[in-house]
Amino acid sequence: MIEKVCIDLSHGSGGRAMAQLIDTLFVKVFDNEWLAQKNDQACFHVEKGRMVISTDGHVISPIFFPGGDIGSLSVNGTINDVVMSGAKPLFLSVGFIIEEGFPIESLERIVKSMAEAAKKAEVAIVTGDTKVVEKGKGDGIFITTTGVGVVPEGVNISGDRAKPGDNVIINGFLGDHGIAIMSKRENLQFHTEIKSDCAALNDLVKVMVEVVPDIHCLRDPTRGGFATTLNEFAKQSQVGFIIEEDKLPIRPEVMSACELLGLDPLYIANEGKIIVICAEEDTDNVLTAMRNHPLGKEAQVVGKVIEDDNHFVQLKTRFGGSRIVDWLVGEQLPRIC
Amino acid sequence: MIEKVCIDLSHGSGGRAMAQLIDTLFVKVFDNEWLAQKNDQACFHVEKGRMVISTDGHVISPIFFPGGDIGSLSVNGTINDVVMSGAKPLFLSVGFIIEEGFPIESLERIVKSMAEAAKKAEVAIVTGDTKVVEKGKGDGIFITTTGVGVVPEGVNISGDRAKPGDNVIINGFLGDHGIAIMSKRENLQFHTEIKSDCAALNDLVKVMVEVVPDIHCLRDPTRGGFATTLNEFAKQSQVGFIIEEDKLPIRPEVMSACELLGLDPLYIANEGKIIVICAEEDTDNVLTAMRNHPLGKEAQVVGKVIEDDNHFVQLKTRFGGSRIVDWLVGEQLPRIC
Repeated sequence: MIEKVCIDLSHGSGGRAMAQLIDTLFVKVFDNEWLAQKNDQACFHVEKGRMVISTDGHVISPIFFPGGDIGSLSVNGTINDVVMSGAKPLFLSVGFIIEEGFPIESLERIVKSMAEAAKKAEVAIVTGDTKVVEKGKGDGIFITTTGVGVVPEGVNISGDRAKPGDNVIINGFLGDHGIAIMSKRENLQFHTEIKSDCAALNDLVKVMVEVVPDIHCLRDPTRGGFATTLNEFAKQSQVGFIIEEDKLPIRPEVMSACELLGLDPLYIANEGKIIVICAEEDTDNVLTAMRNHPLGKEAQVVGKVIEDDNHFVQLKTRFGGSRIVDWLVGEQLPRIC
Repeated sequence: MIEKVCIDLSHGSGGRAMAQLIDTLFVKVFDNEWLAQKNDQACFHVEKGRMVISTDGHVISPIFFPGGDIGSLSVNGTINDVVMSGAKPLFLSVGFIIEEGFPIESLERIVKSMAEAAKKAEVAIVTGDTKVVEKGKGDGIFITTTGVGVVPEGVNISGDRAKPGDNVIINGFLGDHGIAIMSKRENLQFHTEIKSDCAALNDLVKVMVEVVPDIHCLRDPTRGGFATTLNEFAKQSQVGFIIEEDKLPIRPEVMSACELLGLDPLYIANEGKIIVICAEEDTDNVLTAMRNHPLGKEAQVVGKVIEDDNHFVQLKTRFGGSRIVDWLVGEQLPRIC
């Protein structure tokens, strides 16, 4: 039993309150053999091969939003970063930074949401750390998760492997996450039915690499959105892109919200989307594998990799024109992650 | 070249300013093949065996202190958590949460300090993430680091392996880190020559487990200090401890500062100390190995593991009495980590 209503500095002091929080909440809810050992590190067996490690901090506001919360987001987000190498994610670590006065009830809800997301993705949260900062020195709760996973043999996915002639595929609607978050911001509330697309993509990627191990690039277009990820690929692979605007799946509600807020949906964060770059001859197989999976039903080719010494991402507009979709300069207000 | 003087929200937006920060600071200063790949995850080869993962958040104030800074602390602290399993640390990930307005000069200083600490410990910082929060929603900079390492065969160190009859060893003076930090707190400044003991303990542990692979328990008494770590061991191993006060190495300056502030040095955080529990017959070998290492010169036996159904940590005082050194209830103000 946790007797207090709010987190106070004693929950981060290393003393009895912290031990109680670990025992009655984290160990109980995350429920796995590694955490139960209560060492400062978790030990696990590995086979000879390749592993990946990835980390992501989550500072989102509001922490509860339509389609998810900071807990599920922190688990799915890092799982996805691991998965974008083609790896099977195995373990997560979690670092909480909590502001004094944060309701323990909210922490419990977040921890349960993390446990559920982890269970769904068959990943264990095996070690962690909790720090408490004085009131006014944080923003409720920040969660940094780190994941490790194992890369299957023959898979070699990297942002520098896009080649002219390759196709660009996306698995569904862009911008849902960002618009869902913004619709709940204190100073911005507007009505929308849009939910975050927050989801772990490990199972989708698993079936994709089983069918086509030689996928060239994978990345989830989170912060900075679709446009930023393509610009990253262009720079890493020293290529350009031509994207066809009329093929980009964007919900009318997302488009309206973007018009209202003066935002470009191509730069809005997603949390369950994946950009795939693969050879022309592999495209049909990748598409079929994706469309047979619940998280890839709307998968489609949206553009092509081209030779371009400027490494530009070009958008062929609906009206037959073209514009350059550049790196974001400054920021699209408001910050959502 | 980073053109700005302070971190602003654009450095966390995924756009051009963030890419610039990554290229001109992180990739350049951390300087390794994994980070240079600029994927959202780092890929590395492993051999069949056992690995460990550990994570630690760093929210210390002030961020620069005698003997270190939040950068070296975040590297050494997590390396030490990995090392306390007997593992050789290999890779670190880092998650920055930076408050808008934080001076880029300070960030550069911190990043350089991290790189230096990592290089010294022969560990690479291979992947990371940066988030920027609005002014007033953070406290300058928070750094969460996660480390992975490989456990040598035959080594099986865990907090539940302390056995009655085992000896308790410490590698040097207690409380230096906490007192160094407190001496620099805005509202507490007092004069002391004490420096933080912040150091990576990987090389010390390496020579120890080479000589005695069957060390039972290792832990670095950071937050909550020596007393908290022993209480954790008592609970995990279902034993008690008798510690001899006159054998505990505490500098007179640390003792005076504790008296001044009304603190118990046994609960003060350390960042370069290690508590070792090993069998009676292994003790001399462990001690010799430690004393031959620069970070173990002052190593000595300070107490014993005993049978005790109450799992008490008892202190035999200088005057022949005894008192129970219990879990910390509430907190020793001020918070220092």
